[in-house]
Amino acid sequence: MNFEEAAEKALAFREERDWSQFHNPKDLAVSISLEAAELLEVFQWSGADLEVARKASKAKEELADVAIYCIYMADRLGVDLAEAISDKIEANDRKYPVEKSRGNSRKYNEL
Amino acid sequence: MNFEEAAEKALAFREERDWSQFHNPKDLAVSISLEAAELLEVFQWSGADLEVARKASKAKEELADVAIYCIYMADRLGVDLAEAISDKIEANDRKYPVEKSRGNSRKYNEL
Amino acid sequence: MNFEEAAEKALAFREERDWSQFHNPKDLAVSISLEAAELLEVFQWSGADLEVARKASKAKEELADVAIYCIYMADRLGVDLAEAISDKIEANDRKYPVEKSRGNSRKYNEL
Amino acid sequence: MNFEEAAEKALAFREERDWSQFHNPKDLAVSISLEAAELLEVFQWSGADLEVARKASKAKEELADVAIYCIYMADRLGVDLAEAISDKIEANDRKYPVEKSRGNSRKYNEL
Repeated sequence: MNFEEAAEKALAFREERDWSQFHNPKDLAVSISLEAAELLEVFQWSGADLEVARKASKAKEELADVAIYCIYMADRLGVDLAEAISDKIEANDRKYPVEKSRGNSRKYNEL
Repeated sequence: MNFEEAAEKALAFREERDWSQFHNPKDLAVSISLEAAELLEVFQWSGADLEVARKASKAKEELADVAIYCIYMADRLGVDLAEAISDKIEANDRKYPVEKSRGNSRKYNEL
Repeated sequence: MNFEEAAEKALAFREERDWSQFHNPKDLAVSISLEAAELLEVFQWSGADLEVARKASKAKEELADVAIYCIYMADRLGVDLAEAISDKIEANDRKYPVEKSRGNSRKYNEL
Repeated sequence: MNFEEAAEKALAFREERDWSQFHNPKDLAVSISLEAAELLEVFQWSGADLEVARKASKAKEELADVAIYCIYMADRLGVDLAEAISDKIEANDRKYPVEKSRGNSRKYNEL
């Protein structure tokens, strides 16, 4: 299954339940934040354990939830997600020149 | 461009900058939350305006950022994002039976 | 009960459980985000209902959780919360002059 | 300066700018999340450095911002923050008995 097929499946799931009526952009942005928090919760109190390997399957599920809401938001905004990602990478390419940012985690405004 | 190609582009961008060394699961989860907050910021103080149409292009960019970090996290966890989404939709399908959840935004534990 | 007494109570609760060992600044920042998300969840799918009055007691509890973690973070950073708030309000006072910002919700860099 | 005085100062700052008109509960919950994200950003890409001591003054400022929005939310909900904290600690006291939770960071439902 490729991503486009998975996205179709997610949209069909929503259609069957008639949930797009709740999916305005503001509430979708709220939901993406909430799902991101559930993913982050996997790492709460983990200290210097940056992997928390025993919860990898939980992390996978929560990551899927974030991605699903991204699909719903893209659909709601009329955005092609692949194209939006590609455009953003090109913009980042200009903001973070390889020679300045290689091996360096600083933000572009601190380079 | 399909999603898999956009994901390849995002991974190549990271590779060129040697940034995967910073991309442990915990910090990626933090970053997904931070990008989700930037998307949410589009709707700060918007009140009952749930669209904030004048900021749609900003929303598109921030949504792309969330998706890009989801790609990095999936790569780091060794997860196929399309498959994870598909699995999660199937699980949601069982949690939210159509007959009980149709047109209803309540959580599964409140159905 | 004033705030300082409530903060003392929160710190004593932690002391009795020997939990300050987990309370490093990074994990506390994660926890503040997670509690903020639980507060935000009260408003998920509420659309133009900006009050969600039926969940006011839930909102109160989640707000308390955010404040409790702020107390723990302030303690961990050696920060006097009242003084930090007072200093920040003075900085905001300079950033948002009354004449420019009155009745205007724009950020200082958009004034 | 005690917390109540700092809270008064924060509320007066808002009053002078006539900003309470924007401060509905949903947008305040959004803002608390956004400020929590700014605090969390201090720890982005810090890996196993759980202190990020060089950014302690930034952390202090962002923590103050979270607290300030908690004050605004409490005011908007008609909640006495000190009392809400005290009540929540008493509820936590019942959820996390000392003998079961001492030195243990697990959530109450995993004890």
